[in-house]
Amino acid sequence: MPAGSIDFGKYIASYRNFPKPGILFRDISPLLASSKGMNCAIEQLSAEVAGLELDLVAGIESRGFLFSTPLAVRLGIGSMMIRKPGKLPGNLVHESYDLEYGSAELSMQADAPVAGRSVLLVDDLMATGGTMMAARSLLRSCGAVVPACVVIVELAALGGRAALDMPLIALKVYDDSR
Amino acid sequence: MPAGSIDFGKYIASYRNFPKPGILFRDISPLLASSKGMNCAIEQLSAEVAGLELDLVAGIESRGFLFSTPLAVRLGIGSMMIRKPGKLPGNLVHESYDLEYGSAELSMQADAPVAGRSVLLVDDLMATGGTMMAARSLLRSCGAVVPACVVIVELAALGGRAALDMPLIALKVYDDSR
Repeated sequence: MPAGSIDFGKYIASYRNFPKPGILFRDISPLLASSKGMNCAIEQLSAEVAGLELDLVAGIESRGFLFSTPLAVRLGIGSMMIRKPGKLPGNLVHESYDLEYGSAELSMQADAPVAGRSVLLVDDLMATGGTMMAARSLLRSCGAVVPACVVIVELAALGGRAALDMPLIALKVYDDSR
Repeated sequence: MPAGSIDFGKYIASYRNFPKPGILFRDISPLLASSKGMNCAIEQLSAEVAGLELDLVAGIESRGFLFSTPLAVRLGIGSMMIRKPGKLPGNLVHESYDLEYGSAELSMQADAPVAGRSVLLVDDLMATGGTMMAARSLLRSCGAVVPACVVIVELAALGGRAALDMPLIALKVYDDSR
């Protein structure tokens, strides 16, 4: 933990065998419920990205939305949605990515104002990094620069940080996966 | 429009025949993209709920999450998630509600700290009010008081405000549905 930061672990609940057997689910509900915790989280994220000269924050559906907008408001910049299929209107760009079993897809509006702009990716949690990499590919395909991504919780044992190959800012890192 | 407020319609995009033929979809993406628009929105919502002595803000999945957290941070209170089935861990309470065709369900964590507390409901848009009423039932079943709800966009022609039977704060009201 960097000096001056708090242990955000006290704002994360853990649930065994959710959503399926063998998975230890990290839940950010206690963080949301705490005004102090959320303030600390948004302030710390804001401080850590201060040097990046960001233009926009992109939140990944659904829980990424909980953090993308307060961070964008705090930074004084706009935000945008990266969503699952069938949710966004207009002309879209899509990116498929592999899950442990099967695949998933993300989309964004093709006319989102990202060309030549610096866009910070935000989600609540990073596991293998697959979702984050797909979101980055989407943004890059529309001409954005993605200098970093931020999450509340990083599950380090799943190797997402190495796979991601870009700076990852995480408020709480769990080294174990159970 | 109340004196001193801005027309949030300039931050709402409209798409015909999405997600299905005959539907005019109102999209809050331009509001998100505008730092000024989001600041105005959060400030105005904050001012309008100032007298309610709120304890918590409840965001309805997914787009409600975009506004529940920045509003909660601005108000200096916590927030919580009301989600679709299968998303939340722990002991849950559920509420089913009717859609035009078929039905849907919302859930919240049974141990969310809402008993005896005043909880503001937040979503991006209100149409018939079915989702909002189901969310209110959920909160009430856990002992919460729900003094009001807020949305960015109200589709007045669908009659949600009358069906809701509680104060609704909307930043932009569309009287037509097409």
